[in-house]
Amino acid sequence: MEMSKKLLAEFFGTFWLVFGGCGSAIFAAKFIADADGNVIQVGIGFAGVALAFGLTVLTMVYAVGHISGGHFNPAVTVGAVLAGRTPAKDLPGYWGAQVVGGLLAGALLWLIASGRPGFEATGNMAANGFGEHSPGGYSMMAVLVAEVVLTFFFLLVILGSTDERAPKGFAGLSIGLTLTLIHLISIPISNTSVNPARSTGVAFFNGDGAPAQLWLFWIAPIIGAAIAGVAYPALFGKPADQPRREASAVGR
Amino acid sequence: MEMSKKLLAEFFGTFWLVFGGCGSAIFAAKFIADADGNVIQVGIGFAGVALAFGLTVLTMVYAVGHISGGHFNPAVTVGAVLAGRTPAKDLPGYWGAQVVGGLLAGALLWLIASGRPGFEATGNMAANGFGEHSPGGYSMMAVLVAEVVLTFFFLLVILGSTDERAPKGFAGLSIGLTLTLIHLISIPISNTSVNPARSTGVAFFNGDGAPAQLWLFWIAPIIGAAIAGVAYPALFGKPADQPRREASAVGR
Amino acid sequence: MEMSKKLLAEFFGTFWLVFGGCGSAIFAAKFIADADGNVIQVGIGFAGVALAFGLTVLTMVYAVGHISGGHFNPAVTVGAVLAGRTPAKDLPGYWGAQVVGGLLAGALLWLIASGRPGFEATGNMAANGFGEHSPGGYSMMAVLVAEVVLTFFFLLVILGSTDERAPKGFAGLSIGLTLTLIHLISIPISNTSVNPARSTGVAFFNGDGAPAQLWLFWIAPIIGAAIAGVAYPALFGKPADQPRREASAVGR
Amino acid sequence: MEMSKKLLAEFFGTFWLVFGGCGSAIFAAKFIADADGNVIQVGIGFAGVALAFGLTVLTMVYAVGHISGGHFNPAVTVGAVLAGRTPAKDLPGYWGAQVVGGLLAGALLWLIASGRPGFEATGNMAANGFGEHSPGGYSMMAVLVAEVVLTFFFLLVILGSTDERAPKGFAGLSIGLTLTLIHLISIPISNTSVNPARSTGVAFFNGDGAPAQLWLFWIAPIIGAAIAGVAYPALFGKPADQPRREASAVGR
Repeated sequence: MEMSKKLLAEFFGTFWLVFGGCGSAIFAAKFIADADGNVIQVGIGFAGVALAFGLTVLTMVYAVGHISGGHFNPAVTVGAVLAGRTPAKDLPGYWGAQVVGGLLAGALLWLIASGRPGFEATGNMAANGFGEHSPGGYSMMAVLVAEVVLTFFFLLVILGSTDERAPKGFAGLSIGLTLTLIHLISIPISNTSVNPARSTGVAFFNGDGAPAQLWLFWIAPIIGAAIAGVAYPALFGKPADQPRREASAVGR
Repeated sequence: MEMSKKLLAEFFGTFWLVFGGCGSAIFAAKFIADADGNVIQVGIGFAGVALAFGLTVLTMVYAVGHISGGHFNPAVTVGAVLAGRTPAKDLPGYWGAQVVGGLLAGALLWLIASGRPGFEATGNMAANGFGEHSPGGYSMMAVLVAEVVLTFFFLLVILGSTDERAPKGFAGLSIGLTLTLIHLISIPISNTSVNPARSTGVAFFNGDGAPAQLWLFWIAPIIGAAIAGVAYPALFGKPADQPRREASAVGR
Repeated sequence: MEMSKKLLAEFFGTFWLVFGGCGSAIFAAKFIADADGNVIQVGIGFAGVALAFGLTVLTMVYAVGHISGGHFNPAVTVGAVLAGRTPAKDLPGYWGAQVVGGLLAGALLWLIASGRPGFEATGNMAANGFGEHSPGGYSMMAVLVAEVVLTFFFLLVILGSTDERAPKGFAGLSIGLTLTLIHLISIPISNTSVNPARSTGVAFFNGDGAPAQLWLFWIAPIIGAAIAGVAYPALFGKPADQPRREASAVGR
Repeated sequence: MEMSKKLLAEFFGTFWLVFGGCGSAIFAAKFIADADGNVIQVGIGFAGVALAFGLTVLTMVYAVGHISGGHFNPAVTVGAVLAGRTPAKDLPGYWGAQVVGGLLAGALLWLIASGRPGFEATGNMAANGFGEHSPGGYSMMAVLVAEVVLTFFFLLVILGSTDERAPKGFAGLSIGLTLTLIHLISIPISNTSVNPARSTGVAFFNGDGAPAQLWLFWIAPIIGAAIAGVAYPALFGKPADQPRREASAVGR
C-alpha cells in the first residue's frame, strides 16, 4: 500500500473520530424537550457520547483499516511501533495526518456550532481537562492515572484482537467498543482523551484553559500505549514467534 | 438477480428505514412516566432514535442486501453509481422504489399515530428542517454543511466496508452503525436526513413548513454522496484495479 | 438433531426471552436515584428494555440456534413452516415448549418481584395491551396494525438473514437487533409483543385486563408472520430454487 | 499455551471487568448537568453500566480469549471444568488470578475516586448486596434466586456459543452481550454479580455491610454455573460426542 493512501486513511479516520465523537458531545449530549408540559432530557448524555466515539473507530476500521491499519490516534501508533506491528519510519507521517485531521474536524465543528443562535464561543468544544476543567472536578493525579491505565488497556485490546490467534474480522468491533467502554468509565474524570489528536483537535477552539492542559493528554496516553506496546509481545508472544504482520494488521 | 426483486428489496428496505427510524421518534422519543410519584423520562430520547435508524439499515442489509445491495437511500445510489459499483441504468428504478417505500411508511405511521387520543396532526412526524424548523434552531448554512459532510462520510464507510480488501460480512454492521453515529451527532441540527427518501416520506404528512424545506434534504445528501462516489476510487483505488463488483456488493 | 433436544432449546430460549425482556421492564425500567440531592432517573427506560429483549434472542440464537433454529416465538414457527424452512409436524411441539417456557419465566419473575417490599401484585408484570391498557393509550386498531406490520418485518429479516445468499454467522445479530428495533418503535403502542408466548407468559400474572386482551397478541403476530412466510419465497426465491434447509437454519 | 500466559490473561481480563464495569458505576452512573438552567441527568444510568460490564468481557474475549479461554470469573471456571472444557487442575490458578485482578482493580478505582473533592469513602464502590444493601431493597431469597438463575443462563450461553456447532468467532459477542443483558435485568435486585471475583474486588473497599454479604455472591453464582456445567453436556451432547476442546475454547 502506498504511503499517501495510508496517510489519507489516517486523515479521514481521525477527522471522523473528532467530528463524530466531539460533535455528538457538543451538539447532542444535553438537549431539553418538553412532553405534555414537563421538561425532560432527550439529549444523548454521556452514554450516547461514549457510543459515538466508539462507532467512529468501529466504522472507520471497517472502512479504511485495510489501508492504514486504522490507528487514528498518535498513542496507538506509538504502541503499534513498539509492538513491532508498524514500521518506526511511518510514525511521523501518521502523527501529522492524525493531528491535521483532528484540527480540521475541530474547525468544522466550530463553524457548525456557531450557526446556532446563542452559541457561546468559549468552553463548549468538548475539550479534555483536569482539576477545575475536569467535568467531575478530578485532580491532575487522578486524571493522569486514569488516562495511563485506560490507554494501556486500549492497546492491549488492539494488539490482542489483531493477533494472528484471534478470530478474523472482529477486531474492528472489539477495538471500537473498547473506546465506547473507556468513555463510559471516564467522561466524568477527564472528558476522556486516550488520544492526543482528539485532545489537540478541539483544545484551541475550546479555549478556557484547555490549551494549557494539553500536555497531559499527550504524555499520559503515550505512556500507557508504550507500556502495552512493550508488554504485549513480551508477555503473550514476541513478533518472532509469529509471522511478521503488515502495518495494516493493527486495526483489523 | 432480476430487476423486479431488486426493486422490491429497495422498497421494503426504505419502508423499514422510515417506519422504524421515524416511527421510533414519533412514538417513543418522549414518554413521561412516574415512579413513586416522581415524573421521569422513560422514552428513548435522541440516542434511542439514533439506534433505531441504524438498526433499520443493519437489519435490512443482512436481510435483503444480497438482493439489491441495500441502498435504501437515493443519495447512496448516486454514490454507488459514481463509484462504479451500480449500473447507471438502475438509478431511476431504485429512486422510484425508495421514494414509494418511504411515502407508504409515512402514511402508515400517520395512520397508527392518529390512533392515539390527543394526536396533533401537524408538526409531529419527525420531519427534517433548518432555521426555525431545526430542533436546535441551527441556520440553513449549518444544516447544509452538516448534511453534506455526514453523507460524504456515510458513503466513505459504505464504499470502504464493501471494498474487496475489507473483512467479509461486516459491512452491514459498519454501515448500519454509521447511520446510528450520524444521528447521534446531528438530530439537534437538522433532525438528521442524509437520505432524501426518508425526508420525503414524512414531509407532507408532517406539514408545518417541512415540504418547503425538502429541497435542501435532496441537494445536500446528493452532493455529499457524489463527492465520495468520485473521491473513493480516485483516492483509494479505481474500479479497474479490482474485479468489477455487482450492484449487490454495496451494502454487503 | 433429536426432537427432544430441539424442544429443550426452544424451552430455554423462550424462558430467557420472557425472563430477560419482561424482567428488565419489571425490575429496571423506572428507577429513581438522587445525585447531590436531585431526583434523577437512572433506570434503563424503554431503550434499555428494547435492548434487553433483543439481546435475549441474539444470545440464545448463538447459544442454541444450532440445535432448534432459535424461534422462541410461536409466530416465528408459523412463518418458518409456511416458508418451507421447518417441517409442519414440528409446530405443535415447538408451540408447547415455547408457551411452557414463557409461563415458567412469568412465574419466576413474579416470585422475585414479590421479594421487594411494597410490590403491588396487579398490573406490574409488563403485559401487552391496547386501548386503556396500551402504555400510550393507542386504540385496538392501531395496535393491531402495528403488531401485524412489525411481525411481518421481523419474519422478513429472519428469512432473509438465514437465506443461503446472506453472509454466514450474522443472522443472530440481525435477528436479535431487529427485536430491539421493534421495541424501540412500539413499546408505547402495545408494550410490544410480536410474540404470543411472551404475551401469554406474563398475562395471567399481570392480571388487570391482560388475559382478556391476550387474543390480539396471538392473532396479530401470527397474521404478520404468515404473510411473510408466504411472501418471502414467492418474491425472493422459492425453496425449490435453493437447497432445502434444515429447521435449524432459521435463526442461524 | 503455557500456564503463566493463561493466568496473565485471566488477571488482565478480570482487572478490566472490575475496573470498567464497577468504574462506570462509580464515576458515571449518576451525573447531574444543567442545560439552559434546567437540572438534567447526563450520567449513563443503569443501562450504561450494563453496557460497560458487557463490553469489558466482549473486548477481552477478543483480546486474550485465545490465550486463556476468557473466563474472568470463578463461577465460569467452575462451569467450564464441569462441562469438560477446562482441566480441573487449572481451577486453583484461574481463581487466584481472577481474585487478584479484581482486588487490584478495586484498589485502583478507590485511588482514582478519592481524587474527587467530596468523595465519601464508604458505600460508594458499586458493591453487591441484598436486603437493605440491595439497590431496590430485594430480599435475600429474591437475590439468591436471581443470581442462581442468571448465572445458569450465562453459562448456558457460554457453553452453547463455544460449541463446535455454533458459528465461529461470534462467541465473544454473544457472551459479552449476555453479561450486558444480565445487568439490564438485575442491577436493581443485587447490583448484579454472577461473578465472585467482581464482588470480592470491591467489597472491602466499599465497606458498609458488603464484606458480610460476600458469601452469597460466591455461593449463588457457583451453584448456577455448576448446574449449567453439568446440564449442558447432558442435555445437548456430551464431551464424548464431539472432539475434546482446549481450555481456550470457552470464551471463543
